[in-house]
Amino acid sequence: MIQTDICIIGAGPVGLFAVFEAGLLKMRCHLIDALPQIGGQLSEIYPKKPIYDIPGFPEVNAQTLVDNLREQIEPFKPTFTLGERVDGLTRTEDGSFIVTTVDGTQVKSKVVVIAAGLGSFEPRKPELQNLERFEGRGVTYMVKDPETFRQRRLVIAGGGDSALDWTIYLSSIAERVTLIHRNESFRGAPDSAEKVLKLAAEGKIDLLLSANLQSVNGNGVVKSVSVVDKQKVVKEIETDFLIPLFGLSPKLGPIADWGLNLDKSAIEVNTVDYSTNVEGIFAIGDINTYPGKLKLILCGFHEAALMAQRAFEFVYPSQKLSFKYTTVNGVNAF
Amino acid sequence: MIQTDICIIGAGPVGLFAVFEAGLLKMRCHLIDALPQIGGQLSEIYPKKPIYDIPGFPEVNAQTLVDNLREQIEPFKPTFTLGERVDGLTRTEDGSFIVTTVDGTQVKSKVVVIAAGLGSFEPRKPELQNLERFEGRGVTYMVKDPETFRQRRLVIAGGGDSALDWTIYLSSIAERVTLIHRNESFRGAPDSAEKVLKLAAEGKIDLLLSANLQSVNGNGVVKSVSVVDKQKVVKEIETDFLIPLFGLSPKLGPIADWGLNLDKSAIEVNTVDYSTNVEGIFAIGDINTYPGKLKLILCGFHEAALMAQRAFEFVYPSQKLSFKYTTVNGVNAF
Repeated sequence: MIQTDICIIGAGPVGLFAVFEAGLLKMRCHLIDALPQIGGQLSEIYPKKPIYDIPGFPEVNAQTLVDNLREQIEPFKPTFTLGERVDGLTRTEDGSFIVTTVDGTQVKSKVVVIAAGLGSFEPRKPELQNLERFEGRGVTYMVKDPETFRQRRLVIAGGGDSALDWTIYLSSIAERVTLIHRNESFRGAPDSAEKVLKLAAEGKIDLLLSANLQSVNGNGVVKSVSVVDKQKVVKEIETDFLIPLFGLSPKLGPIADWGLNLDKSAIEVNTVDYSTNVEGIFAIGDINTYPGKLKLILCGFHEAALMAQRAFEFVYPSQKLSFKYTTVNGVNAF
Repeated sequence: MIQTDICIIGAGPVGLFAVFEAGLLKMRCHLIDALPQIGGQLSEIYPKKPIYDIPGFPEVNAQTLVDNLREQIEPFKPTFTLGERVDGLTRTEDGSFIVTTVDGTQVKSKVVVIAAGLGSFEPRKPELQNLERFEGRGVTYMVKDPETFRQRRLVIAGGGDSALDWTIYLSSIAERVTLIHRNESFRGAPDSAEKVLKLAAEGKIDLLLSANLQSVNGNGVVKSVSVVDKQKVVKEIETDFLIPLFGLSPKLGPIADWGLNLDKSAIEVNTVDYSTNVEGIFAIGDINTYPGKLKLILCGFHEAALMAQRAFEFVYPSQKLSFKYTTVNGVNAF
C-alpha cells in the first residue's frame, strides 16, 4: 500500500500545481491518473495548442506548461500511479482514506484532493456491431505510440482536430492512411484541414468525405472496414487498424458514489478552502463548482493554494501553520 | 478627462492581469499607479528577486514576470497614468465614477477596480536626527540595483527577511557589510538567519546584535554611523551607505474614505465576483480580504478573472456575456 499525506486524483495542471502548494507546507503527494501520462487534457487532447490565458505567459504551448509544472514540483518529489482509473474509497479507523484503483493499487492518505478535471475521459465510439470485439485487436481510440503504426495500413475516422492532426502525422509513418469523415467539411483547425486536403490531392492519403463507417470486419483481428457514401455505395477498405477519433466524453465515474454533494457532474465546494461536504476531501479545478465558478486553469491554481492551507490541519493536526513566502528562500527551504 | 470602461487603481501584477481578463470581454482599461513604473512591489521593491510560486514558472525573476504581463496585455492596449497617487472618487448622474489623482488627472469609467496591493508603500524609518538630510546621499531604504553597492562599505539595519536576504546577497558584492540588529535573534526565516550567523562566524560580514543606530554622520554624504550596544558602549562604523530595512508601511490613503467596508486596512469583498459593498467597485489582490484569503499573486489572478465577468454587466448592461476560451482562437479574436 502506498502511504502519503495527500492523495491527488488527477494529474492535470491543477493536480500538479497542488503538489507545489502542498509541498510548501511539507505535505507529500501521490497522484493517480487514468491517462498514461501527466498533464490531463493538455497532454492528451491538445498538447501542441498554444494557451493564451495563463498569467505571465503571453502564449504557451499546452505541453510546455505541463513540462514547466513538472519541473516546478520536482523538489517535492511527488509519486504517481498513471494509467489506472480510481475506483473505491474507504475510510480507516484513524480517519485516513484508502483510494483504490481498478487495477488494485491502494493509496492511504490523510487527505484526498479531487482534481479530476471533467472526470476521466472515455472515447466516443461509433455505433458498429462487434466493435468491442475488435478493441485491442486493430480497433483503438487513442494514439499512444505512433510507432505502433509504422508501415501498417490505417483507417482514421473523424473530422475534428484529433482526426486531422493524426492523419497528417501518421501519413509519413504508416504504409497507408485513409481518413473517413461523414461531412463535406472539417470541424478542426482550417490550417490542418488544408494540409489534409493537400495530402489527399498529392495522393499521399486516401480521403473519403460524406462517408460513414458501416462495419468492421475480420477474423479475430481487423482485416477491413466497410464504408458507405451518400449515394449508399458500400466500399470495403483493407486495413490493419481502425482508429475512430470522435472525441472524448468525460465521465465522473465511481467518484459520483463517494457521498459528495454534486451539482450536475460537478462537486460542490465552498470558497474558503475548496473542501467538499466530506471532511478531508477537497475538489479543485474544473471538477468543482461554487457561485462564480469559471473553468479556467488559473482558477484551479488559486483553489489549490487555499486548499493546501486547510489540508495542513488534517496532515499535521497538532501543528500551527506559519505562512511563508517563497520569495524569501525559494523552494529548497521548504 | 480620460474615458475608459474600467479604471484600475494599481499597476502591479494583479492590476496588469485584470487588463487581460477585461480585454477578453472587450472592456478597455486605464491604470493609475503612484509609482513611476508598472509592476508594483515586484518592480519597485524586489525586481531582481526570483519568484517561485507563480504556476508554470519553476523560477521567474520578478521584473521578468512584469515584462511578460505587459506583453500579455499589449493586445488590449491599456492606458496608464503613472507616478500619480489617487485622491478623490465621485459619482456622476449616469452612475459612472470619476477618479482623480493628486495631480488633477481625471478618469471616468463605469467600473473601478482597486488592485492597489497593500496600498502605497512608505519605508519605515529609524528615528535618527538628520536622517532625511542624508537620504539619497548614502541613506537608502530599498535595494533597487545591487550593483550600486559593488566594492562599497554598507551598514544594513534590521532583523527581518529583507535585512537578512540583502546581507547575504550583498556580502559577496560589497567591500564590507555590517548588519546591525537591535535584538539577539532574527525575525526572518531561520534558514536565512543561519546563513547570516555563518557569514559572521567566517568573518565575511560584521554582525552587531543587541545594538541600535544612534546617529548617522557625514558632511553632505554619509561617512559613518554610530551604534550603541546594550552595555551603552558607542561604536562608530565608517561606511558609504546606511540601509535601514525595517519594512515598508503600506498606506491605504484616500481610498479609506471611499465608503468601502474595511477589515483593518483591507477591503472586504465577496468571493463570487470580488465586488465591494459599493456597486461597481471591485477589489482584487493583496488589498482585499475574505474568508480564506491568501496574499499570493496567483490568487489575485483568479480574482481578476471572476471580477471581469461581473464588471461586464456594468460596462455592457444590455448584453449577454458568452464565455469563450482563448485556446480556440487566441486573443486576437477578442
